[in-house]
Amino acid sequence: MIQKYQFGAPFETDAVVKKLQSNKYPTQTIVNGTTKIILTEDKSHSFTWTYTLKDTDIVYGLGEANRGINKRGWIYKSWCTDDPVHTENKESLYGAHNFIMIYHPETPDSTFALFFDYPGKVTFDIGYTKTNELKIQIEDNNLYVYEITPDNSSPLTNIITQFRALIGQSYLPPRWAFGMGQSRWGYKNANDIRTVYQKYKQAGIPLDSIYLDIDYMVNYKDFTIDTQKFPSLKDLVLELKKDGVRLVPIIDAGVKIEENYDIYEEGKTHDFFCKRKDGTNFVAGVWPGKTHFPDFLNPEVRSWFGSKYKILTDEGIEGFWNDMNEPAIFYSEEGLSETFTKLKECEKENLDIKSFFQTRSLMHSISNNEKDYKRFYHKTTQGIICHDKLHNLFGYNMTRAAGEAFKTISPDKRLLMFSRSSYIGMHRYGGIWMGDNQSWWQHILLNLKMLPSLNMCGFLYTGADTGGFGGNTTRDLLLRWYALSIFTPLFRNHSALGTREQECYQFEQTNDFKSIVQLRYRLIPYLYSEYMKAALNNTMMFRPLTFDYPKDFRVLEIEDQLMLGNEIMIAPIYTQNTRGRYVYLPENMTKIVWQDGEILSTKSLTKGDNYIECDLNQVVFFIKGNAIIPLAPICNCTDKLDYSKLEILGEGASYELYTDNGFTTNPKKDGMIRILKNT
Amino acid sequence: MIQKYQFGAPFETDAVVKKLQSNKYPTQTIVNGTTKIILTEDKSHSFTWTYTLKDTDIVYGLGEANRGINKRGWIYKSWCTDDPVHTENKESLYGAHNFIMIYHPETPDSTFALFFDYPGKVTFDIGYTKTNELKIQIEDNNLYVYEITPDNSSPLTNIITQFRALIGQSYLPPRWAFGMGQSRWGYKNANDIRTVYQKYKQAGIPLDSIYLDIDYMVNYKDFTIDTQKFPSLKDLVLELKKDGVRLVPIIDAGVKIEENYDIYEEGKTHDFFCKRKDGTNFVAGVWPGKTHFPDFLNPEVRSWFGSKYKILTDEGIEGFWNDMNEPAIFYSEEGLSETFTKLKECEKENLDIKSFFQTRSLMHSISNNEKDYKRFYHKTTQGIICHDKLHNLFGYNMTRAAGEAFKTISPDKRLLMFSRSSYIGMHRYGGIWMGDNQSWWQHILLNLKMLPSLNMCGFLYTGADTGGFGGNTTRDLLLRWYALSIFTPLFRNHSALGTREQECYQFEQTNDFKSIVQLRYRLIPYLYSEYMKAALNNTMMFRPLTFDYPKDFRVLEIEDQLMLGNEIMIAPIYTQNTRGRYVYLPENMTKIVWQDGEILSTKSLTKGDNYIECDLNQVVFFIKGNAIIPLAPICNCTDKLDYSKLEILGEGASYELYTDNGFTTNPKKDGMIRILKNT
Repeated sequence: MIQKYQFGAPFETDAVVKKLQSNKYPTQTIVNGTTKIILTEDKSHSFTWTYTLKDTDIVYGLGEANRGINKRGWIYKSWCTDDPVHTENKESLYGAHNFIMIYHPETPDSTFALFFDYPGKVTFDIGYTKTNELKIQIEDNNLYVYEITPDNSSPLTNIITQFRALIGQSYLPPRWAFGMGQSRWGYKNANDIRTVYQKYKQAGIPLDSIYLDIDYMVNYKDFTIDTQKFPSLKDLVLELKKDGVRLVPIIDAGVKIEENYDIYEEGKTHDFFCKRKDGTNFVAGVWPGKTHFPDFLNPEVRSWFGSKYKILTDEGIEGFWNDMNEPAIFYSEEGLSETFTKLKECEKENLDIKSFFQTRSLMHSISNNEKDYKRFYHKTTQGIICHDKLHNLFGYNMTRAAGEAFKTISPDKRLLMFSRSSYIGMHRYGGIWMGDNQSWWQHILLNLKMLPSLNMCGFLYTGADTGGFGGNTTRDLLLRWYALSIFTPLFRNHSALGTREQECYQFEQTNDFKSIVQLRYRLIPYLYSEYMKAALNNTMMFRPLTFDYPKDFRVLEIEDQLMLGNEIMIAPIYTQNTRGRYVYLPENMTKIVWQDGEILSTKSLTKGDNYIECDLNQVVFFIKGNAIIPLAPICNCTDKLDYSKLEILGEGASYELYTDNGFTTNPKKDGMIRILKNT
Repeated sequence: MIQKYQFGAPFETDAVVKKLQSNKYPTQTIVNGTTKIILTEDKSHSFTWTYTLKDTDIVYGLGEANRGINKRGWIYKSWCTDDPVHTENKESLYGAHNFIMIYHPETPDSTFALFFDYPGKVTFDIGYTKTNELKIQIEDNNLYVYEITPDNSSPLTNIITQFRALIGQSYLPPRWAFGMGQSRWGYKNANDIRTVYQKYKQAGIPLDSIYLDIDYMVNYKDFTIDTQKFPSLKDLVLELKKDGVRLVPIIDAGVKIEENYDIYEEGKTHDFFCKRKDGTNFVAGVWPGKTHFPDFLNPEVRSWFGSKYKILTDEGIEGFWNDMNEPAIFYSEEGLSETFTKLKECEKENLDIKSFFQTRSLMHSISNNEKDYKRFYHKTTQGIICHDKLHNLFGYNMTRAAGEAFKTISPDKRLLMFSRSSYIGMHRYGGIWMGDNQSWWQHILLNLKMLPSLNMCGFLYTGADTGGFGGNTTRDLLLRWYALSIFTPLFRNHSALGTREQECYQFEQTNDFKSIVQLRYRLIPYLYSEYMKAALNNTMMFRPLTFDYPKDFRVLEIEDQLMLGNEIMIAPIYTQNTRGRYVYLPENMTKIVWQDGEILSTKSLTKGDNYIECDLNQVVFFIKGNAIIPLAPICNCTDKLDYSKLEILGEGASYELYTDNGFTTNPKKDGMIRILKNT
């Protein structure tokens, strides 16, 4: 059951699609015996929600967030942030997903979840200050709170399904978006793109897409194509498409201030940019230098900006990624000026312990400074509102602009769309990638841990920058990361300018990569089918083991294994110089070992603890004892996927395969299942 | 066997104490079948040593370094660096320990080790560029290389013992230095110290030392005491000493430039500071603002600076920590001036993708900039040499200054001394702490992994800032870290200004901390005995399991368990929200569970894989099946340790207890062992 509570006069974020009546929130409730929920709206009009956790409770949720699947023991702040160094201590990443679920393993029926529909900063202190205190704080008391309690005896999955129905059906990518993508900030021109395409082809490694980072544009101007570097994008698109390879350009949030640049001129003429209090257009430094931000909170601006994607679809483009839409701000005009003034004051001093660090941090804190987010305003249907009150809706509404426009631009064919920043609600318009991670072993595990949390919040189309965006990768790190990413819907190798090049063909024994990617393509019928069923039925594609085995308390703490769809369990290796790991099997399962482009072995294993060996050139995964999965023949791109020749893997009896044409914009829930039998 | 090879005209670092004849190095050698060692001295006079690794080889060594016990798969640079953010990608930490050992598990007799005695930058590419290529590069070809091959059938331990004999006996701390220490950058005055002391006393948590960070000095001036904050340090020392608590002040590398400050005036008068090329004293900004660096490479300067420690021993001080001695440089006068000039040039531009990041990084790269290390010189017995050629010897020689002086200052009583920066050789004069880590779970594991690597290089007295120096800790992190640190010789809780306070009494259920620290004190007879035996016999106190079980290939990859002394194995929990972990037992062992100040259970376990539960308030460790260890009665400080009432724990027959008075400066190897029998 879902209860909706209204506090004050909330901003309508459009996160939720179901219309519900609001109730008055009880100020104190007894839940689960003695535990208390206390809600305070204090004099300063701030909002606090407090709950006493039992030692054994698990707190799920928060979508794209740092640290564990169980969020206990840290403080998280929903505040969309462009911070590429995801060390353990970070409190905010790119998305703001204010959903948490409190699970009582011993009394599962008392499990409940909360969604705080508030578009500004929300602080979740989940046992950081006091071990057993969960405290959620908002500076402002205008919000909706949705409380969800289970309707049946599977509380975890039931609560998620209720929540997902509340927020609406997840975005559906085209099937080709399940192919491998190669990306790098640093491909300078059409020839660089051709080199990537040809080298993958030569290596025999399947590929479905190559990404265009910011260098395809003229001076980083949205919706321009630099014809010096890309003489004919349309021809390049056609050339690569013959081998099933699609180009996916980036779109940034800031519009360069430049006379006679049409997007800038139109935005200026129609007052489509975010304004300062005095009515002038706010100036933010980003890639092109000084820019204005389109006011995506204004439906008219969304409609205008969204229509511009047609400039690229007219060139044959079928997918996009929206970036820098937290929005990232390198500097504001105001911030830059203040900083230089202060720096000059420091210059004359004997810089000691106090003054030196202040001086050094001046330049650092100039970027993504909270002061700047208070310096501009949105013209919404609900009035003119300062950005900092709506901060977490910016990326959402940029991507919504695209998603709404796609209905007109591409009425019959689903386009690929994913964003860096997001808020719940955006999951209906696109996926997200997990932001600018690093070539760190621990980020393989962080990648894995975010998957179920994101699925809870409706973000099914997701994955991490495989190999790591920042920093230098190594061959073994990349192989191990591939062995996880081949299971995630978004499967993209992406890296930053200045880092070690990390396309598969840059490393020794390229065949090891080829083999692992081939497994991905063999699995696409399964992955796509599980994705579509999860999206259409409001379920999770990736689940912590507890969701499937709630009575087995050994799985409660397992955060390095996941259930994938209804048939598979994954347990990747995420540490260097190790060829094995422990895996707990919650039931009898079949261990599949993949190597050299084929199944090396299948072995039935018994429920319990297992030490599993997995060499760098292998992938190991597990099929439930009573399940089967389909495998497509090896192919080099999704266009060549042959559904007529599916093989069956596993010991069970049958599998429900979701089939459609892979791109329809009118997908059906019923009648699309083909039952595969194990003969 | 040890072979010494000389290249060019090496600087005599005094890392090695044994006089050996130099040989000519063979330019190409066949080792272990087809594997090649190739040495090149190319035209540019750089030095390269290359070796082809087998897939199964393990590379040990590098002392205080990032990442795994097995160093394969990354690039490391020996360059003493003050960098407090030890993420996976970092190549340099505070120490420079150029020792590596290449272990062939299948042909252990062909195992060998190398020590590159070179005081400037050394790069170890251990399979980063090419998976199986180990490449060691130095810009200069003036160095000694020591190659060590095994003399008996235990190659790993034998090589280490040979190397340790080569570099001389490890530093011996007083026994009280095995007690717990509480530290924080932020204790402002004597009352803050008293509060710590009293709160620990009230909580009943054993304590042996409280550290004085930089605030005890007058404006961060070495060897001064701020009598505003500490009206009588001598009285405070006496007051705390009654309860066995000692004060341990910090000493920094830079001497404040201030007229009439005696240390500054003496250094200036006698030309004891590092000079620029033009003969003027080099100016480095550190805590006090502008400072000069004492030229520790000059024996006369060492003698002068070392004698100053007496100012503090005269106050009753018995231990010190040397800091900032990489040396850390916040800025040089030259660097600061260049930066401000460039910043002004940037101010007028439209800062775009290129110029913005350049501008922002200007202030950041001002600190510990390699250019500054080329700006000053040392007057050594071997001539005037630019600092960057001897960089890694600076911290070593600062601590050597103290160590050499202690022979006069405290001829009969060992003093505590540990340093941040180090080079092999410094292990004879003091220990090190593992630098400015963070309150990250992964740093518990990094702490564990560094222990055996440091032991190989002679650094036995070591430990990490328990709870993490930077960042905010949590109660559970601190408890888990304590459950490791109670086993390390240096056991200190330390944190930075501005972070969450992390003394044990700051958290709920302080008794859980009390219990864990009590176990430490019960273990001191064992830890001290194993330490003394390791130091006097040139063995390792902490060992990877492979050292003890070379025929069990399952232990080769285990990097989260260690052998501690001859009797114990430790396997701490280092992940949040987990109450259990897998532990591999290489032989039958007894599992000890400690809780609430007592042994909760002892259980015999069988060789093989075990899933071990360990709650937050527990410590679990393992005693070998045929071993026993002594346990002292619980006490509140090492002064109260009662060796007459030792209990025995374990299933074996006897234990060799090393006993002395805990402070003699003339420790004996023979005749100090008392055999404890299991009756």
